[in-house]
Amino acid sequence: MNLLLKEIRHNPVLWLLAFVPVVFAAVKFSPEAHTLLFVLSVLAIVPLAALLSHATESVAAKTGDAAGGLLNATLGNLTELVIALTALRAGEYMLVKASIAGAIVTNTLFVLGASFLLGGLKHHVQEYNRVNARIQAGLLFLATVALLIPSLVAKVDASADAFTQKLSVGLAVLLIVTYGLYLLFSLKTHREFFASAEHAEDGEVPWPIGLALATLAGVTVLVALVSEIFVESVQKAAEAFGMTPAFVGFIVVALVGGAAEMGSAFAGARKNRLDLSVGIALGSSSQIALFVAPVLVLLSYVLGPTPMDLQFWPGAVVMIFIATLTASLVTSNGRSAWFVGVLLLMVYLIFAMTLYLLPPRVQ
Amino acid sequence: MNLLLKEIRHNPVLWLLAFVPVVFAAVKFSPEAHTLLFVLSVLAIVPLAALLSHATESVAAKTGDAAGGLLNATLGNLTELVIALTALRAGEYMLVKASIAGAIVTNTLFVLGASFLLGGLKHHVQEYNRVNARIQAGLLFLATVALLIPSLVAKVDASADAFTQKLSVGLAVLLIVTYGLYLLFSLKTHREFFASAEHAEDGEVPWPIGLALATLAGVTVLVALVSEIFVESVQKAAEAFGMTPAFVGFIVVALVGGAAEMGSAFAGARKNRLDLSVGIALGSSSQIALFVAPVLVLLSYVLGPTPMDLQFWPGAVVMIFIATLTASLVTSNGRSAWFVGVLLLMVYLIFAMTLYLLPPRVQ
Amino acid sequence: MNLLLKEIRHNPVLWLLAFVPVVFAAVKFSPEAHTLLFVLSVLAIVPLAALLSHATESVAAKTGDAAGGLLNATLGNLTELVIALTALRAGEYMLVKASIAGAIVTNTLFVLGASFLLGGLKHHVQEYNRVNARIQAGLLFLATVALLIPSLVAKVDASADAFTQKLSVGLAVLLIVTYGLYLLFSLKTHREFFASAEHAEDGEVPWPIGLALATLAGVTVLVALVSEIFVESVQKAAEAFGMTPAFVGFIVVALVGGAAEMGSAFAGARKNRLDLSVGIALGSSSQIALFVAPVLVLLSYVLGPTPMDLQFWPGAVVMIFIATLTASLVTSNGRSAWFVGVLLLMVYLIFAMTLYLLPPRVQ
Repeated sequence: MNLLLKEIRHNPVLWLLAFVPVVFAAVKFSPEAHTLLFVLSVLAIVPLAALLSHATESVAAKTGDAAGGLLNATLGNLTELVIALTALRAGEYMLVKASIAGAIVTNTLFVLGASFLLGGLKHHVQEYNRVNARIQAGLLFLATVALLIPSLVAKVDASADAFTQKLSVGLAVLLIVTYGLYLLFSLKTHREFFASAEHAEDGEVPWPIGLALATLAGVTVLVALVSEIFVESVQKAAEAFGMTPAFVGFIVVALVGGAAEMGSAFAGARKNRLDLSVGIALGSSSQIALFVAPVLVLLSYVLGPTPMDLQFWPGAVVMIFIATLTASLVTSNGRSAWFVGVLLLMVYLIFAMTLYLLPPRVQ
Repeated sequence: MNLLLKEIRHNPVLWLLAFVPVVFAAVKFSPEAHTLLFVLSVLAIVPLAALLSHATESVAAKTGDAAGGLLNATLGNLTELVIALTALRAGEYMLVKASIAGAIVTNTLFVLGASFLLGGLKHHVQEYNRVNARIQAGLLFLATVALLIPSLVAKVDASADAFTQKLSVGLAVLLIVTYGLYLLFSLKTHREFFASAEHAEDGEVPWPIGLALATLAGVTVLVALVSEIFVESVQKAAEAFGMTPAFVGFIVVALVGGAAEMGSAFAGARKNRLDLSVGIALGSSSQIALFVAPVLVLLSYVLGPTPMDLQFWPGAVVMIFIATLTASLVTSNGRSAWFVGVLLLMVYLIFAMTLYLLPPRVQ
Repeated sequence: MNLLLKEIRHNPVLWLLAFVPVVFAAVKFSPEAHTLLFVLSVLAIVPLAALLSHATESVAAKTGDAAGGLLNATLGNLTELVIALTALRAGEYMLVKASIAGAIVTNTLFVLGASFLLGGLKHHVQEYNRVNARIQAGLLFLATVALLIPSLVAKVDASADAFTQKLSVGLAVLLIVTYGLYLLFSLKTHREFFASAEHAEDGEVPWPIGLALATLAGVTVLVALVSEIFVESVQKAAEAFGMTPAFVGFIVVALVGGAAEMGSAFAGARKNRLDLSVGIALGSSSQIALFVAPVLVLLSYVLGPTPMDLQFWPGAVVMIFIATLTASLVTSNGRSAWFVGVLLLMVYLIFAMTLYLLPPRVQ
């Protein structure tokens, strides 16, 4: 417990934990103040996500390489998963899908681009492990194809609901199998390819296993509770801020859910450890596309009011496709300078601006 | 003749030759048993294709490098060409186009992916001639553009039939000219780039030229006769098996037509001669796209009931485009491991599953 | 003045300057002879563009590296800009957009492809600075995304005019900012990456600054005057030649506007200085996409009868996207042979043929 307090004293982000009780109080006393609840829940989720990330890494560090890698690879986006599960249970499938698509695009373009830019402002040219980047980009490309197909077919024949449902389940199974084989590949048969892309080193002392597990359990529950407030308030707050629902799902939710990881990615880039940044950016994207998204499809049969399919809004599919293609083209040579980051960020800005200006009907 | 018999004894695939007389008998005695005829004709085509492939390579080996390469490059997909010609004469343009598109996708994703996987299960990392792969991918990309344009224009203006027809002939001529220039490039001016991608070595003894020519002529006739049974029975058999016509044209016909070559590609990969596998997979794709397809368009003016155009079902164009892009991205660094094969096979599985589940109306 | 005359005697292209007075005389005496005026204005623009290009480079050579590079980078496509401005003032937005799209596609496919082919016919294999090519291709890719988005959204919702207008202005600003940052990157912070891609060396003696500035000013006025005749006559002349308006805007205007630069690019390729050719081809494309096009959008608020947006005909967007993707895939390894040029030229021919045959309704 002392360690936890010391960590909190040390890390200014964790001071935001004060907002966790505040948001629970606020929801009790003024349940209709959507904008206030939205802001408070964002402020509460960010430090919880940081704690969750640290706890996951501490457990991973204790349990040895293969199991630890597996843990990191499945729980690394726990915050995003919990938020999406909350929206799933509420039947908000539009929000679930927008946040999946948004998390992929945000990680691939914004986190990668800002890492390249921040690192490049300090270091003239940076190098990173391009084999790792190529395989992550390949995984993302595969996931993009899987998301593209149901949307394309649905465009041709709008009445093909039963077909889309069956296809989505099949695709979800294929994606999870691929992700499992990827873990086998990266943690077992070809570990040396991924050598320098380890996450949790960085001089941080891992917590003892008991504290880590307790934190993991406790904080997950807290994130789930705060997410409920977040999901309920986000759409109404968005209207108050004059944002379109698409912008909120795509940009705001993705930035909130990934805030903790972004911090690590940017810090890594400044320290000229770009492998860490590329690993977080592309690794999170492919984990969400190949693990979180299909798990949500399968869980919707158990938890949701009706089954959820993998058919996305066509604009979202185009953005995921462009983001994946951009990442493939940009990362194929394993070198970066600040302007490469600018290019990625500009593509992200184009998407964000389009979503912000989009007339509500189109979405 | 002794050599031919020895070859047959040696090679278990050729034992399937027994089905050639069986299928002719079956079509005589029960012409309505479509499912039976379909299965028998598949079993008969596979060994005939293997013989054809061996005979072509034997003639090529005798006639010297440049002429031999030319022969291999034009007759390498003779089986596919004969099947497609049979369907063309029957006016089954849907089947012709589906089998062209299917052969491109199957070679690019399935043959290449399975070669990478099978090779990678035995060898940790495999290298291959990336210059060759890049040029083949470039050829495929060009062909994809040529197939994309008529479908796109037709989508915008459904009544532009005369235009599509003229455009298709023009594109066919451009593709054949490009293929001719490619032969000049790869067999003459820049042979050294393609050094290790030779087909017919492999310890196999080439047949004497007389036997090879006779086999080539005789087997081509047999393939043509069996193809007729195959084309007539395939659609009805598909219904009996519960397969959609799109699945049959795309997947089944492509696998049957290319079975012989697949065997060589997989064997090459196991022997760590990945250049052979990449050459077969991408070479067949580009040969079909740049030579077989445009030749069929031009021949449709002579042989078909009406001219055939190059306008494909939009879904087929998307699949060809994705397959080409995947191959470009995957082969650009000249190295492979088993997981790269998994990625290619998964894209193929996504396509196969979509086509299998597709409601008939959409196609 | 002597220098200018010497230059004219030396350079046969400049003999075409004789057509400048001829075209002004012709427009006075037979203002309805559209086909004649079209031919004469083309013949007059080509030498003027060559003079403009030489004058820009002379000023650039005098003003030192950074300022000179900046000048080259902003005035390098002055001819295209002046022609487009003339069409803009006449409210011919279709022609403006077609000429922008056409200039991008023509530079990326035709100029690059013909340079590779001409260079490759003389030299077995040619190498060039692939870092420069990658960054230019990245810039082009970004611009393609910016042009893609308004067209895609407009396709979904045809009534979103106000939205498209706002989005276009936002995108124009983003593109110009990116271009500014690119200049900072290539002329200041990472100059060494672009080392061998200098334009104006080549043994040519730069003019004295006074002559260069006077030529720049005088010739720009002449180009503007001739452009007016060109823009007025081009559509009617096209009909007389049996060309579709799309073909004229895309192919003819682009070839006329870029003729001077093409000469330099081809000469560089023959002298095995492929960096010069790649720099001209991809540099012009990205300059038009990231600087000329957005400047025209912003200027349309001042000069045009109504504001112009960035929404292109879907076919044009597809062509730009394919051209960019082709250039990315082809230039990623920094080596070239004649057949690579053939591949690029064939993609260009496919586009030109499609536009030539296109039924007028579809455009």
